[in-house]
Amino acid sequence: MQEGNINFHTRKWVRPEDLNANGTLFGGSLLRWIDEEATIYAILQMGNGRVVTKLMSEINFVSSAQQGDLIEMGLRAVKFGTTSLTMQAEVRNMITRSSILTIERIVFVNLDEHGRPAPHGYTDITYDRDRLPTHHLPSVPPVP
Amino acid sequence: MQEGNINFHTRKWVRPEDLNANGTLFGGSLLRWIDEEATIYAILQMGNGRVVTKLMSEINFVSSAQQGDLIEMGLRAVKFGTTSLTMQAEVRNMITRSSILTIERIVFVNLDEHGRPAPHGYTDITYDRDRLPTHHLPSVPPVP
Amino acid sequence: MQEGNINFHTRKWVRPEDLNANGTLFGGSLLRWIDEEATIYAILQMGNGRVVTKLMSEINFVSSAQQGDLIEMGLRAVKFGTTSLTMQAEVRNMITRSSILTIERIVFVNLDEHGRPAPHGYTDITYDRDRLPTHHLPSVPPVP
Amino acid sequence: MQEGNINFHTRKWVRPEDLNANGTLFGGSLLRWIDEEATIYAILQMGNGRVVTKLMSEINFVSSAQQGDLIEMGLRAVKFGTTSLTMQAEVRNMITRSSILTIERIVFVNLDEHGRPAPHGYTDITYDRDRLPTHHLPSVPPVP
Amino acid sequence: MQEGNINFHTRKWVRPEDLNANGTLFGGSLLRWIDEEATIYAILQMGNGRVVTKLMSEINFVSSAQQGDLIEMGLRAVKFGTTSLTMQAEVRNMITRSSILTIERIVFVNLDEHGRPAPHGYTDITYDRDRLPTHHLPSVPPVP
Amino acid sequence: MQEGNINFHTRKWVRPEDLNANGTLFGGSLLRWIDEEATIYAILQMGNGRVVTKLMSEINFVSSAQQGDLIEMGLRAVKFGTTSLTMQAEVRNMITRSSILTIERIVFVNLDEHGRPAPHGYTDITYDRDRLPTHHLPSVPPVP
Repeated sequence: MQEGNINFHTRKWVRPEDLNANGTLFGGSLLRWIDEEATIYAILQMGNGRVVTKLMSEINFVSSAQQGDLIEMGLRAVKFGTTSLTMQAEVRNMITRSSILTIERIVFVNLDEHGRPAPHGYTDITYDRDRLPTHHLPSVPPVP
Repeated sequence: MQEGNINFHTRKWVRPEDLNANGTLFGGSLLRWIDEEATIYAILQMGNGRVVTKLMSEINFVSSAQQGDLIEMGLRAVKFGTTSLTMQAEVRNMITRSSILTIERIVFVNLDEHGRPAPHGYTDITYDRDRLPTHHLPSVPPVP
Repeated sequence: MQEGNINFHTRKWVRPEDLNANGTLFGGSLLRWIDEEATIYAILQMGNGRVVTKLMSEINFVSSAQQGDLIEMGLRAVKFGTTSLTMQAEVRNMITRSSILTIERIVFVNLDEHGRPAPHGYTDITYDRDRLPTHHLPSVPPVP
Repeated sequence: MQEGNINFHTRKWVRPEDLNANGTLFGGSLLRWIDEEATIYAILQMGNGRVVTKLMSEINFVSSAQQGDLIEMGLRAVKFGTTSLTMQAEVRNMITRSSILTIERIVFVNLDEHGRPAPHGYTDITYDRDRLPTHHLPSVPPVP
Repeated sequence: MQEGNINFHTRKWVRPEDLNANGTLFGGSLLRWIDEEATIYAILQMGNGRVVTKLMSEINFVSSAQQGDLIEMGLRAVKFGTTSLTMQAEVRNMITRSSILTIERIVFVNLDEHGRPAPHGYTDITYDRDRLPTHHLPSVPPVP
Repeated sequence: MQEGNINFHTRKWVRPEDLNANGTLFGGSLLRWIDEEATIYAILQMGNGRVVTKLMSEINFVSSAQQGDLIEMGLRAVKFGTTSLTMQAEVRNMITRSSILTIERIVFVNLDEHGRPAPHGYTDITYDRDRLPTHHLPSVPPVP
């Protein structure tokens, strides 16, 4: 199933609020961006707006970025479990053409309305929008 | 030149911090996202990291979004001036399949190192990365 | 009705987090500030805390600002529709004495408790506080 | 000198990101807003963009605010020292018509380009804009 | 009761988004950090997640901090009222070894589920975790 | 060297801006907090304000948190390389008494003034403040 290409969607422009005290991209900002992008990807693949991050495998920061640089984030589904989805991630600096980091496995879990793991019913990656949820999430979270 | 398709790249997941006091997407968050995405697009098309927003034509908010909805933003270059670039923008709600807003013209200006308009040398849209700047911006801004 | 003066209320102090990568005021921060200030003005004029941005006419960024500059935002109601309010906006840089941008028309719509347009009952601008809502908004938004 | 009226300028609209975990206005957001507004006022009175907060007298939180409420902040200069300015502050909830807090004395100090206290040359409050600085601050701070 | 030592827990790393336009630590960021830390301390001492800031005595900013500096915040309970807790606070710059500010009295009030002051039942400071609340707060705030 | 105890310092109070669209703690906020806390710890152990995150080993999110919960973050140095430091991390929910996540290895690298790895000269953990840097970082980052 891993033959599919990684798709780069969301881009970021490194602004002063994203810098650490050394003047390079703050790792915390970067991790926050990845988690948000992976959540969006998981919702699109599992067809459910109620998903949570379960695991991230080792993250190796091989290069960084500076103010004004452009960043792009790519994801690819690599494994569908019964209630989970595993994806690969790569973040690249568009200006230096360098990879900033790769993550071999980010695992998301599909939840039901009570916040418990629930089967999502899919076994393969979609490149279409056929699984997009069609309803808003209720605005008050369930109390577990 | 306008026959090209609009490309949707960056996506957002509407979180509590993006809501207005009515519980729908805060217009100010949305405008901020658009301006950042348009800046990135302008840099990629004009091959220069030093660009500024010059004009946005009328913005009609035709629908909104709620917490947990997914948003995508699309842009397309429609006119290259000597020192400027005009693009079209559309923002869509991926959950409701509705357009949130369209902007017919967003104009960016290409600046030189002194912050003055400068020719960018391009006359047509690129779908490649052949114009990406290859150097970081200096970290101390010029004093006009 | 347009003979009234524009009133400048809210001011901002441009801090590092409001800068773009060029070291000038980030357009996205500016648009966010305007939308918040216009919302406040609309609530005061239509006497209802449940209002949404419907339209912004062309925005021309004629000058910018730098770190440490002071910004002020002015608004004036120019037209009352049955369920809407149209206002003019101007943002000025207090340090350079330059106008940063003007917006001829920002339209807000008055909503009822179900999120639908509702008559507000006013036909003219108030300079007093006689229309201020006197109750909090319910904390859980209605589900449309 | 204290006979002058307090002027209310900047307003805030309480959004979800400003709430504490109890669903009322987070004290930290409120203190941050006051400090920014007082800084702006100090710059306008002392005619210098380089000012710092030196002291705040006792702060008594007599009421609060909820999501969707409007807040206004008022300040009045009450004493000009050689290198300092003392002002009074009041924050009000426009919806409940209640005072949220008052601060009898907020003291700002006027700094020179090396970050040291410097005489500002004023002895009385201005209601005009005759003291507004006319130059940008340098973007690189001095190293003390 | 005041013989106990002040305990320094939470630390902050001063990043670009925390600077004022002078390049030193923004007072508003600092006050926001203190209020959050004091809230946490109050919850741990009064055994209730529903607490609010009632009063802060005079705050004297005796030194500041720069980008990259480390800050630490210390608190100590000094008085238990029936429904309130009074604590002392100190903020220090770990790099310069200087005190940034001290606050002699920060008073928090313990609230019941309707948002009214309620007895907390404690008369002395705890250095253990025996008072930690064991349940989540309900996610919808009470309407007073 | 691993016999030392993990020390829990910085605490967070989960506020609305830290929630994901499911109403539980946003993973991105959590990762950002950890990276900041680890940076502070690295500076204190390597005696240098110029450090960067190099690697995070697998992160397993075993439980989460809700609005109003208190979080605490603990770190312990486990290995000193010539230019690097490896530490363990644990994040706990103080309300549920549950571990939220553990990270076996977070590696930081010590940098010289040109942004290159540099020996830090330490071989063991300190529980004192004898390695704290005593000078501010220069405010303009070096251009590599």
